[in-house]
Amino acid sequence: MANNAQRFFTAALGLCAVFEAAAFEPLPEQAPAPADNPITPEKVELGKQLFFDPRLSVDGTVSCNSCHNVMSSGTDNRPVSVGVAAQKGGRSAPTVWNAAFLSAQFWDGRAPTLEEQAKGPILNEIEMGMPNEQAVVERIKVIPQYVEQFRRVFGGENPVTYDNIAKAIATYERTLITPNSAFDRYVKGDKQALSDDAKKGMQLVKDLGCTGCHAGPDFSGSANRKTGEGNFQKFPVFPGSEYDTKYNLLDDPGRYSVTKKEEDKHVWRVPTWRNVALTAPYFHNGSVKTLDEAVRVMAKTQLNKDLNEEQVKQIVAFLNSLTGEFPEQTMPVLPVVANTSLIVE
Amino acid sequence: MANNAQRFFTAALGLCAVFEAAAFEPLPEQAPAPADNPITPEKVELGKQLFFDPRLSVDGTVSCNSCHNVMSSGTDNRPVSVGVAAQKGGRSAPTVWNAAFLSAQFWDGRAPTLEEQAKGPILNEIEMGMPNEQAVVERIKVIPQYVEQFRRVFGGENPVTYDNIAKAIATYERTLITPNSAFDRYVKGDKQALSDDAKKGMQLVKDLGCTGCHAGPDFSGSANRKTGEGNFQKFPVFPGSEYDTKYNLLDDPGRYSVTKKEEDKHVWRVPTWRNVALTAPYFHNGSVKTLDEAVRVMAKTQLNKDLNEEQVKQIVAFLNSLTGEFPEQTMPVLPVVANTSLIVE
Repeated sequence: MANNAQRFFTAALGLCAVFEAAAFEPLPEQAPAPADNPITPEKVELGKQLFFDPRLSVDGTVSCNSCHNVMSSGTDNRPVSVGVAAQKGGRSAPTVWNAAFLSAQFWDGRAPTLEEQAKGPILNEIEMGMPNEQAVVERIKVIPQYVEQFRRVFGGENPVTYDNIAKAIATYERTLITPNSAFDRYVKGDKQALSDDAKKGMQLVKDLGCTGCHAGPDFSGSANRKTGEGNFQKFPVFPGSEYDTKYNLLDDPGRYSVTKKEEDKHVWRVPTWRNVALTAPYFHNGSVKTLDEAVRVMAKTQLNKDLNEEQVKQIVAFLNSLTGEFPEQTMPVLPVVANTSLIVE
Repeated sequence: MANNAQRFFTAALGLCAVFEAAAFEPLPEQAPAPADNPITPEKVELGKQLFFDPRLSVDGTVSCNSCHNVMSSGTDNRPVSVGVAAQKGGRSAPTVWNAAFLSAQFWDGRAPTLEEQAKGPILNEIEMGMPNEQAVVERIKVIPQYVEQFRRVFGGENPVTYDNIAKAIATYERTLITPNSAFDRYVKGDKQALSDDAKKGMQLVKDLGCTGCHAGPDFSGSANRKTGEGNFQKFPVFPGSEYDTKYNLLDDPGRYSVTKKEEDKHVWRVPTWRNVALTAPYFHNGSVKTLDEAVRVMAKTQLNKDLNEEQVKQIVAFLNSLTGEFPEQTMPVLPVVANTSLIVE
């Protein structure tokens, strides 16, 4: 009898542990890499150099890091970014920290992988403005040290290709992980890691339904196991609130701009909550300046709920517990072509 | 007699050593700091953060590092730099590496110290575009971690001041030194460190007279001991060559724009030769794309000499021997204000 009771409790505890783990999980300290692009230290270093190299932009002024600042929140903390010739994009730069865990890349999920994502902004005329892939490859090919590095990392006759540039950048990005947030420490057993407000906020996001979409270790859900498609969601689910016009939520059709399917209008890839306290302003258009207002907007537009100020405070406290530790990084050294100019205009 | 001869040779060798040292000196590994701004590790770190922080520009897109890239040559390797709103300056960004050794700062020497220099670009409307000193101080003051760092570094009731911002940045810049070039190793006794061409170029720059202005360990001369004024020189000394129009050498009146004195027309602070192989394009207007052409232009305009291609090659080889070692640096971590936006536009 004692034995049976013991067995019952053990089994019940086991179930609870499984349930808790499924609901709230710590951030992995490593990101998975695709089979055709394994992570190596040399590739990470090359990718870091390229990520910081403004020569990947047409006039040599904009690097990946200009809008996804890894010395900071992984964003530029602006409503929308500024590219070459002071051109402004239409969407706010998402953080590159923990982007390796997203179900798809870009706000509209148009890139399934970090490799595909990396190829976009370099050729976007309002971002880095390079005219075509070949021009990017030629830029890199005249820098002897880069050619040597590409040879070592990728091998082959012709190692400097646009694909390999993207592979190196993606590999560096896979190392941009911020583990050990207060939340992570809590989930791993340190029950003192969260404040009472944060604990209440943690319960609230579950009870209200936020974690229906913001699921998994980085709170952005996961790709569909069968189709591989990203975790997409309509925003607003409940149109008609004051926020639609106040924050221009319906100006951008979202994923529809990629698929042209009616059902994809105002559909977006679910963003991460990791480090969300550091990435203001909020939403795809950077229209909301503070996290508390972003919480109010989401509750209303996605769940049709009006939160009271206590609830907002508690959820904000919980979201702040998701700010992780930013690993120390060495600066890359960008190889220079001696004795001559690369950027001429 | 043997004793006298020995004494004579010893004295002669001693004189030669003094003469050689005066002509060619290795780069010091540390820069002197002013009495009112001593170097401390905490101040260097704060200065590094500020140097990399784009929030010192009006729209949050331009940092000191944007134009003086310390992951690279300490410049942007562009003819002229691009500031906020894609505005272009009139002069090429000088390298920040070894700037601590310059006799004065800016091409026209209008700042006697790194501290004074640091105050300029932040408020320049075509560079970082902040409206006034107070606006810069307010930007920093709303970032709690910065306030705490300023308190630790500078103490006092009101540690976040424009002066202290400049002091921190200048302190970081004093650590930006590239020792141990091939030239330095040669001067210190490693006679294999220079190629034959470089050795011939080294002799040439002395014989031709280049080192009359490009003197001292960083080849930019030193400030006047009595007046403290920087090492200035007319350029071109010999006007009338084809280069004046080909490279628009007379469009900018140089130091005259600061002093309004007739004798300062086309007068410039002598720039360093350290890492000059990496800082193309050349001259105050970035009009010359290659180092060999820069050597030809200088010989003609400053010394009225037409070099042959062998001489140019040798001088370029010597100048390449002045490329130093760039110290490994950790990336700064820029403190973020949680839950809200700092840059709003």
